[in-house]
Amino acid sequence: MAKMKLYYSPASPYARKVRVVAIETGLDKKIDMVNVALSPVTPNADVDKHNPIGKIPVLSVKGMDLFDSPVICEYLDTQHKGRKLFPRKGRDRWVALRQQAMGDGLLDAALLARYEGFLRPEERRWADWSKGQMKKIDGVLGQLEAETKALKGKPTIGTISVACALGYLDFRFPTFDWRAKHPKLAKWFTATGKTASIKATVPPPG
Amino acid sequence: MAKMKLYYSPASPYARKVRVVAIETGLDKKIDMVNVALSPVTPNADVDKHNPIGKIPVLSVKGMDLFDSPVICEYLDTQHKGRKLFPRKGRDRWVALRQQAMGDGLLDAALLARYEGFLRPEERRWADWSKGQMKKIDGVLGQLEAETKALKGKPTIGTISVACALGYLDFRFPTFDWRAKHPKLAKWFTATGKTASIKATVPPPG
Repeated sequence: MAKMKLYYSPASPYARKVRVVAIETGLDKKIDMVNVALSPVTPNADVDKHNPIGKIPVLSVKGMDLFDSPVICEYLDTQHKGRKLFPRKGRDRWVALRQQAMGDGLLDAALLARYEGFLRPEERRWADWSKGQMKKIDGVLGQLEAETKALKGKPTIGTISVACALGYLDFRFPTFDWRAKHPKLAKWFTATGKTASIKATVPPPG
Repeated sequence: MAKMKLYYSPASPYARKVRVVAIETGLDKKIDMVNVALSPVTPNADVDKHNPIGKIPVLSVKGMDLFDSPVICEYLDTQHKGRKLFPRKGRDRWVALRQQAMGDGLLDAALLARYEGFLRPEERRWADWSKGQMKKIDGVLGQLEAETKALKGKPTIGTISVACALGYLDFRFPTFDWRAKHPKLAKWFTATGKTASIKATVPPPG
Protein backbone atom coordinates (compact mmCIF):
# COMPACT_ATOMS: atom_id res chain seq x y z
CA MET A 1 0.00 0.00 0.00
CA ALA A 2 1.22 3.52 -0.77
CA LYS A 3 2.14 5.41 2.37
CA MET A 4 -0.71 7.42 3.86
CA LYS A 5 -0.41 10.94 5.23
CA LEU A 6 -2.36 12.18 8.26
CA TYR A 7 -2.76 15.90 8.97
CA TYR A 8 -3.25 16.22 12.69
CA SER A 9 -2.34 18.15 15.80
CA PRO A 10 -1.33 16.55 19.09
CA ALA A 11 -4.11 18.51 20.84
CA SER A 12 -6.96 17.58 18.45
CA PRO A 13 -9.31 15.05 20.02
CA TYR A 14 -10.79 14.11 16.63
CA ALA A 15 -7.28 13.42 15.30
CA ARG A 16 -6.60 11.42 18.45
CA LYS A 17 -9.44 9.06 17.49
CA VAL A 18 -7.69 8.39 14.18
CA ARG A 19 -4.30 7.91 15.87
CA VAL A 20 -5.79 5.42 18.33
CA VAL A 21 -7.47 3.52 15.49
CA ALA A 22 -4.17 3.51 13.56
CA ILE A 23 -2.37 1.96 16.53
CA GLU A 24 -5.14 -0.55 17.27
CA THR A 25 -5.15 -1.72 13.65
CA GLY A 26 -1.35 -1.81 13.31
CA LEU A 27 -1.47 0.79 10.55
CA ASP A 28 0.39 3.51 12.44
CA LYS A 29 3.71 2.59 10.79
CA LYS A 30 2.16 3.08 7.35
CA ILE A 31 1.11 6.67 8.07
CA ASP A 32 3.28 9.77 7.76
CA MET A 33 2.19 12.25 10.41
CA VAL A 34 1.98 15.94 9.48
CA ASN A 35 1.64 18.16 12.56
CA VAL A 36 -0.32 21.34 11.74
CA ALA A 37 -1.62 24.33 13.69
CA LEU A 38 -4.98 25.97 12.97
CA SER A 39 -8.19 27.36 14.51
CA PRO A 40 -11.58 28.44 13.15
CA VAL A 41 -10.23 31.98 12.76
CA THR A 42 -6.67 31.11 11.68
CA PRO A 43 -6.90 28.66 8.81
CA ASN A 44 -3.95 26.61 7.57
CA ALA A 45 -3.35 26.75 3.81
CA ASP A 46 -1.87 23.24 3.69
CA VAL A 47 -4.92 21.77 5.42
CA ASP A 48 -7.29 23.79 3.23
CA LYS A 49 -5.69 22.17 0.15
CA HIS A 50 -6.72 18.74 1.43
CA ASN A 51 -9.96 19.54 3.24
CA PRO A 52 -12.14 22.39 1.98
CA ILE A 53 -13.72 22.63 5.44
CA GLY A 54 -10.27 23.49 6.82
CA LYS A 55 -10.38 21.02 9.69
CA ILE A 56 -8.22 18.18 10.91
CA PRO A 57 -7.89 15.24 10.79
CA VAL A 58 -7.46 14.65 7.05
CA LEU A 59 -6.04 11.42 5.63
CA SER A 60 -4.46 11.51 2.17
CA VAL A 61 -4.39 8.09 0.60
CA LYS A 62 -4.27 6.85 -3.01
CA GLY A 63 -5.05 10.29 -4.41
CA MET A 64 -8.07 10.74 -2.11
CA ASP A 65 -8.34 13.16 0.79
CA LEU A 66 -10.59 11.62 3.42
CA PHE A 67 -12.37 13.45 6.24
CA ASP A 68 -13.96 13.76 8.77
CA SER A 69 -12.77 11.48 11.61
CA PRO A 70 -15.58 8.87 11.37
CA VAL A 71 -14.85 8.42 7.64
CA ILE A 72 -11.08 8.14 8.17
CA CYS A 73 -11.51 5.68 11.04
CA GLU A 74 -13.88 3.50 9.04
CA TYR A 75 -11.51 3.57 6.06
CA LEU A 76 -8.54 2.48 8.18
CA ASP A 77 -10.66 -0.32 9.62
CA THR A 78 -11.02 -1.78 6.10
CA GLN A 79 -7.24 -1.78 5.58
CA HIS A 80 -6.23 -4.43 8.07
CA LYS A 81 -6.95 -8.10 8.72
CA GLY A 82 -7.46 -7.99 12.48
CA ARG A 83 -10.57 -7.69 14.62
CA LYS A 84 -12.80 -4.93 13.30
CA LEU A 85 -13.37 -1.77 15.34
CA PHE A 86 -16.53 -1.01 13.33
CA PRO A 87 -18.84 -4.00 13.87
CA ARG A 88 -19.97 -5.01 10.38
CA LYS A 89 -23.71 -5.14 10.99
CA GLY A 90 -26.61 -5.65 13.32
CA ARG A 91 -27.23 -4.09 16.69
CA ASP A 92 -23.50 -4.07 17.57
CA ARG A 93 -22.85 -1.66 14.71
CA TRP A 94 -25.57 0.78 15.80
CA VAL A 95 -24.44 0.64 19.41
CA ALA A 96 -20.86 1.51 18.36
CA LEU A 97 -21.87 4.24 15.90
CA ARG A 98 -24.22 5.76 18.47
CA GLN A 99 -21.42 5.77 21.06
CA GLN A 100 -19.18 7.44 18.48
CA ALA A 101 -21.91 10.05 17.90
CA MET A 102 -22.10 10.67 21.67
CA GLY A 103 -18.33 11.07 21.97
CA ASP A 104 -18.13 13.33 18.91
CA GLY A 105 -21.22 15.26 20.05
CA LEU A 106 -19.64 15.88 23.43
CA LEU A 107 -16.50 17.05 21.63
CA ASP A 108 -18.39 19.36 19.28
CA ALA A 109 -19.94 21.05 22.31
CA ALA A 110 -16.66 21.13 24.25
CA LEU A 111 -14.78 22.70 21.32
CA LEU A 112 -17.49 25.35 20.90
CA ALA A 113 -17.40 26.07 24.64
CA ARG A 114 -13.62 26.38 24.49
CA TYR A 115 -13.70 28.70 21.44
CA GLU A 116 -16.28 30.79 23.27
CA GLY A 117 -14.24 31.00 26.45
CA PHE A 118 -10.70 31.28 25.07
CA LEU A 119 -10.59 32.20 21.38
CA ARG A 120 -13.36 34.81 21.24
CA PRO A 121 -12.61 38.32 22.54
CA GLU A 122 -13.96 38.60 26.06
CA GLU A 123 -16.53 41.33 25.36
CA ARG A 124 -18.05 39.22 22.58
CA ARG A 125 -18.71 36.14 24.68
CA TRP A 126 -22.30 35.08 25.34
CA ALA A 127 -23.04 33.23 28.58
CA ASP A 128 -26.18 31.57 27.19
CA TRP A 129 -24.14 29.97 24.40
CA SER A 130 -21.56 28.52 26.80
CA LYS A 131 -24.35 27.35 29.08
CA GLY A 132 -26.10 25.62 26.17
CA GLN A 133 -22.91 23.79 25.20
CA MET A 134 -22.14 22.75 28.78
CA LYS A 135 -25.67 21.35 29.03
CA LYS A 136 -24.93 19.11 26.02
CA ILE A 137 -21.71 17.91 27.68
CA ASP A 138 -23.62 17.15 30.91
CA GLY A 139 -26.29 15.36 28.89
CA VAL A 140 -23.79 13.06 27.21
CA LEU A 141 -21.95 12.35 30.47
CA GLY A 142 -25.24 11.42 32.14
CA GLN A 143 -26.21 9.12 29.29
CA LEU A 144 -22.78 7.45 29.23
CA GLU A 145 -22.97 6.93 33.00
CA ALA A 146 -26.30 5.15 32.47
CA GLU A 147 -24.80 3.05 29.66
CA THR A 148 -21.31 2.31 31.03
CA LYS A 149 -21.96 -1.41 30.78
CA ALA A 150 -22.13 -1.13 26.98
CA LEU A 151 -18.63 0.42 26.91
CA LYS A 152 -17.00 -2.63 28.46
CA GLY A 153 -15.19 -5.27 26.44
CA LYS A 154 -12.78 -4.96 23.53
CA PRO A 155 -12.34 -1.52 21.97
CA THR A 156 -14.65 -0.39 19.18
CA ILE A 157 -14.93 2.94 17.40
CA GLY A 158 -17.57 3.73 20.01
CA THR A 159 -15.41 3.20 23.06
CA ILE A 160 -12.40 4.89 21.41
CA SER A 161 -14.51 7.97 20.64
CA VAL A 162 -15.80 8.16 24.20
CA ALA A 163 -12.28 7.79 25.63
CA CYS A 164 -10.95 10.60 23.40
CA ALA A 165 -13.88 12.81 24.39
CA LEU A 166 -13.30 12.27 28.13
CA GLY A 167 -9.57 12.83 27.61
CA TYR A 168 -10.36 16.17 26.03
CA LEU A 169 -12.38 17.25 29.06
CA ASP A 170 -9.41 16.48 31.30
CA PHE A 171 -7.08 18.28 28.87
CA ARG A 172 -9.02 21.50 28.31
CA PHE A 173 -11.43 21.65 31.28
CA PRO A 174 -9.17 20.46 34.10
CA THR A 175 -11.27 22.10 36.81
CA PHE A 176 -14.51 20.50 35.57
CA ASP A 177 -14.91 17.55 37.93
CA TRP A 178 -17.08 15.28 35.80
CA ARG A 179 -15.95 12.22 37.77
CA ALA A 180 -17.82 13.06 40.98
CA LYS A 181 -21.25 12.74 39.37
CA HIS A 182 -20.30 9.90 37.00
CA PRO A 183 -18.43 7.31 39.08
CA LYS A 184 -19.05 4.31 36.80
CA LEU A 185 -17.87 6.21 33.75
CA ALA A 186 -14.85 7.51 35.67
CA LYS A 187 -13.92 3.97 36.66
CA TRP A 188 -14.23 2.77 33.07
CA PHE A 189 -12.07 5.65 31.87
CA THR A 190 -9.36 4.93 34.45
CA ALA A 191 -9.13 1.35 33.18
CA THR A 192 -9.32 2.38 29.51
CA GLY A 193 -6.65 5.01 30.02
CA LYS A 194 -4.15 2.19 30.61
CA THR A 195 -4.58 0.89 27.05
CA ALA A 196 -1.34 1.39 25.08
CA SER A 197 -3.06 3.26 22.21
CA ILE A 198 -4.78 5.66 24.60
CA LYS A 199 -1.62 6.24 26.63
CA ALA A 200 0.45 6.86 23.50
CA THR A 201 -1.88 9.62 22.31
CA VAL A 202 -2.46 11.67 25.47
CA PRO A 203 -2.39 15.37 24.52
CA PRO A 204 0.74 17.26 25.56
CA PRO A 205 0.56 19.55 28.59
CA GLY A 206 -0.30 23.18 27.85
CA MET B 1 -41.15 -3.79 11.75
CA ALA B 2 -42.26 -1.67 14.70
CA LYS B 3 -43.08 1.83 13.64
CA MET B 4 -40.15 4.24 13.86
CA LYS B 5 -40.34 7.76 15.22
CA LEU B 6 -38.32 10.67 13.77
CA TYR B 7 -37.81 13.88 15.74
CA TYR B 8 -37.27 16.61 13.17
CA SER B 9 -38.07 20.14 12.18
CA PRO B 10 -39.09 21.18 8.66
CA ALA B 11 -36.25 23.74 8.66
CA SER B 12 -33.44 21.36 9.80
CA PRO B 13 -31.15 20.45 6.89
CA TYR B 14 -29.76 17.44 8.74
CA ALA B 15 -33.29 16.16 9.32
CA ARG B 16 -33.98 16.80 5.65
CA LYS B 17 -31.23 14.32 4.74
CA VAL B 18 -33.04 11.66 6.77
CA ARG B 19 -36.41 12.55 5.24
CA VAL B 20 -34.97 12.30 1.73
CA VAL B 21 -33.39 8.94 2.53
CA ALA B 22 -36.71 7.74 4.01
CA ILE B 23 -38.51 8.63 0.78
CA GLU B 24 -35.81 7.19 -1.48
CA THR B 25 -35.87 3.89 0.40
CA GLY B 26 -39.67 3.70 0.64
CA LEU B 27 -39.51 3.77 4.44
CA ASP B 28 -41.28 7.12 4.89
CA LYS B 29 -44.62 5.44 5.54
CA LYS B 30 -43.10 3.45 8.39
CA ILE B 31 -41.95 6.55 10.25
CA ASP B 32 -44.03 8.71 12.59
CA MET B 33 -42.83 12.28 12.26
CA VAL B 34 -42.54 14.40 15.42
CA ASN B 35 -42.09 18.09 14.63
CA VAL B 36 -40.06 19.84 17.35
CA ALA B 37 -38.65 23.33 17.89
CA LEU B 38 -35.25 23.96 19.50
CA SER B 39 -31.99 25.91 19.24
CA PRO B 40 -28.58 25.72 20.94
CA VAL B 41 -29.83 28.12 23.62
CA THR B 42 -33.43 26.87 23.86
CA PRO B 43 -33.30 23.10 24.34
CA ASN B 44 -36.32 20.85 23.93
CA ALA B 45 -36.97 18.45 26.82
CA ASP B 46 -38.55 15.83 24.57
CA VAL B 47 -35.52 15.79 22.27
CA ASP B 48 -33.11 15.75 25.23
CA LYS B 49 -34.81 12.56 26.43
CA HIS B 50 -33.86 10.82 23.19
CA ASN B 51 -30.57 12.53 22.33
CA PRO B 52 -28.31 13.75 25.17
CA ILE B 53 -26.71 16.18 22.74
CA GLY B 54 -30.10 17.86 22.33
CA LYS B 55 -30.04 17.95 18.54
CA ILE B 56 -32.27 16.72 15.76
CA PRO B 57 -32.68 14.47 13.89
CA VAL B 58 -33.17 11.54 16.25
CA LEU B 59 -34.71 8.23 15.17
CA SER B 60 -36.31 6.03 17.81
CA VAL B 61 -36.52 2.43 16.68
CA LYS B 62 -36.71 -0.90 18.52
CA GLY B 63 -35.85 0.70 21.85
CA MET B 64 -32.79 2.48 20.43
CA ASP B 65 -32.41 6.21 19.90
CA LEU B 66 -30.18 6.76 16.89
CA PHE B 67 -28.28 9.95 16.01
CA ASP B 68 -26.67 11.83 14.29
CA SER B 69 -27.91 12.08 10.69
CA PRO B 70 -25.17 9.90 9.09
CA VAL B 71 -25.95 7.09 11.55
CA ILE B 72 -29.71 7.36 11.02
CA CYS B 73 -29.34 7.44 7.24
CA GLU B 74 -27.06 4.41 7.22
CA TYR B 75 -29.45 2.55 9.52
CA LEU B 76 -32.42 3.24 7.25
CA ASP B 77 -30.39 2.06 4.28
CA THR B 78 -30.10 -1.39 5.91
CA GLN B 79 -33.88 -1.60 6.34
CA HIS B 80 -34.95 -1.89 2.71
CA LYS B 81 -34.34 -4.21 -0.22
CA GLY B 82 -33.76 -1.62 -2.95
CA ARG B 83 -30.61 -0.06 -4.37
CA LYS B 84 -28.32 1.03 -1.54
CA LEU B 85 -27.64 4.74 -0.96
CA PHE B 86 -24.49 3.85 1.01
CA PRO B 87 -22.27 1.93 -1.40
CA ARG B 88 -21.20 -1.19 0.48
CA LYS B 89 -17.46 -0.99 -0.10
CA GLY B 90 -14.53 0.11 -2.20
CA ARG B 91 -13.85 3.53 -3.65
CA ASP B 92 -17.57 4.25 -4.26
CA ARG B 93 -18.16 4.12 -0.52
CA TRP B 94 -15.37 6.59 0.28
CA VAL B 95 -16.48 8.93 -2.49
CA ALA B 96 -20.03 8.98 -1.09
CA LEU B 97 -18.98 9.32 2.57
CA ARG B 98 -16.54 12.11 1.63
CA GLN B 99 -19.33 13.93 -0.23
CA GLN B 100 -21.54 13.51 2.82
CA ALA B 101 -18.73 14.98 4.97
CA MET B 102 -18.49 17.95 2.58
CA GLY B 103 -22.24 18.56 2.67
CA ASP B 104 -22.41 18.19 6.45
CA GLY B 105 -19.25 20.30 6.87
CA LEU B 106 -20.79 23.07 4.81
CA LEU B 107 -23.90 22.81 6.97
CA ASP B 108 -21.97 22.90 10.24
CA ALA B 109 -20.34 26.14 9.11
CA ALA B 110 -23.59 27.60 7.75
CA LEU B 111 -25.46 26.87 10.98
CA LEU B 112 -22.68 28.45 13.07
CA ALA B 113 -22.72 31.49 10.79
CA ARG B 114 -26.47 31.73 11.16
CA TYR B 115 -26.38 31.41 14.95
CA GLU B 116 -23.71 34.10 14.99
CA GLY B 117 -25.70 36.47 12.78
CA PHE B 118 -29.24 35.84 14.05
CA LEU B 119 -29.36 34.06 17.38
CA ARG B 120 -26.52 35.81 19.23
CA PRO B 121 -27.15 39.31 20.62
CA GLU B 122 -25.75 41.83 18.17
CA GLU B 123 -23.12 43.31 20.49
CA ARG B 124 -21.70 39.85 21.14
CA ARG B 125 -21.11 38.95 17.50
CA TRP B 126 -17.56 38.51 16.25
CA ALA B 127 -16.83 39.27 12.60
CA ASP B 128 -13.74 37.02 12.46
CA TRP B 129 -15.85 34.04 13.49
CA SER B 130 -18.45 34.65 10.77
CA LYS B 131 -15.68 35.21 8.25
CA GLY B 132 -14.01 31.95 9.24
CA GLN B 133 -17.27 30.02 8.77
CA MET B 134 -18.01 31.67 5.41
CA LYS B 135 -14.52 30.69 4.24
CA LYS B 136 -15.37 27.05 4.99
CA ILE B 137 -18.60 27.37 3.00
CA ASP B 138 -16.68 28.90 0.07
CA GLY B 139 -14.08 26.16 0.32
CA VAL B 140 -16.66 23.40 0.06
CA LEU B 141 -18.50 25.11 -2.81
CA GLY B 142 -15.21 25.44 -4.72
CA GLN B 143 -14.33 21.79 -4.16
CA LEU B 144 -17.81 20.61 -5.18
CA GLU B 145 -17.61 22.74 -8.34
CA ALA B 146 -14.32 20.96 -9.18
CA GLU B 147 -15.92 17.58 -8.50
CA THR B 148 -19.41 18.07 -9.94
CA LYS B 149 -18.89 15.10 -12.26
CA ALA B 150 -18.73 12.77 -9.24
CA LEU B 151 -22.19 13.99 -8.12
CA LYS B 152 -23.89 12.79 -11.29
CA GLY B 153 -25.81 9.54 -11.54
CA LYS B 154 -28.23 7.89 -9.16
CA PRO B 155 -28.59 9.39 -5.69
CA THR B 156 -26.28 8.30 -2.88
CA ILE B 157 -25.92 9.57 0.66
CA GLY B 158 -23.24 11.84 -0.79
CA THR B 159 -25.40 13.55 -3.38
CA ILE B 160 -28.36 13.77 -0.98
CA SER B 161 -26.16 15.49 1.63
CA VAL B 162 -24.83 17.97 -0.90
CA ALA B 163 -28.34 18.77 -2.17
CA CYS B 164 -29.61 19.39 1.38
CA ALA B 165 -26.60 21.62 2.09
CA LEU B 166 -27.16 23.73 -1.03
CA GLY B 167 -30.86 23.90 -0.23
CA TYR B 168 -30.01 25.31 3.18
CA LEU B 169 -27.92 28.08 1.64
CA ASP B 170 -30.90 29.08 -0.51
CA PHE B 171 -33.20 28.87 2.52
CA ARG B 172 -31.16 30.83 5.08
CA PHE B 173 -28.72 32.85 2.96
CA PRO B 174 -30.97 33.92 0.08
CA THR B 175 -28.81 36.91 -0.85
CA PHE B 176 -25.62 34.80 -1.02
CA ASP B 177 -25.29 34.17 -4.77
CA TRP B 178 -23.20 30.99 -4.74
CA ARG B 179 -24.40 30.07 -8.22
CA ALA B 180 -22.46 32.80 -10.06
CA LYS B 181 -19.07 31.37 -9.13
CA HIS B 182 -20.14 27.70 -9.26
CA PRO B 183 -22.06 27.24 -12.51
CA LYS B 184 -21.56 23.48 -12.86
CA LEU B 185 -22.70 22.87 -9.29
CA ALA B 186 -25.66 25.22 -9.84
CA LYS B 187 -26.69 23.27 -12.94
CA TRP B 188 -26.44 19.97 -11.07
CA PHE B 189 -28.53 21.38 -8.21
CA THR B 190 -31.23 22.65 -10.58
CA ALA B 191 -31.57 19.16 -12.05
CA THR B 192 -31.40 17.44 -8.64
CA GLY B 193 -34.00 19.81 -7.23
CA LYS B 194 -36.56 18.18 -9.54
CA THR B 195 -36.22 14.82 -7.78
CA ALA B 196 -39.46 13.96 -5.94
CA SER B 197 -37.73 13.39 -2.57
CA ILE B 198 -35.90 16.70 -2.74
CA LYS B 199 -39.04 18.58 -3.83
CA ALA B 200 -41.13 17.01 -1.06
CA THR B 201 -38.71 18.20 1.64
CA VAL B 202 -38.05 21.83 0.67
CA PRO B 203 -38.02 23.95 3.85
CA PRO B 204 -41.08 26.14 4.40
CA PRO B 205 -40.78 29.85 3.63
CA GLY B 206 -39.78 32.11 6.53
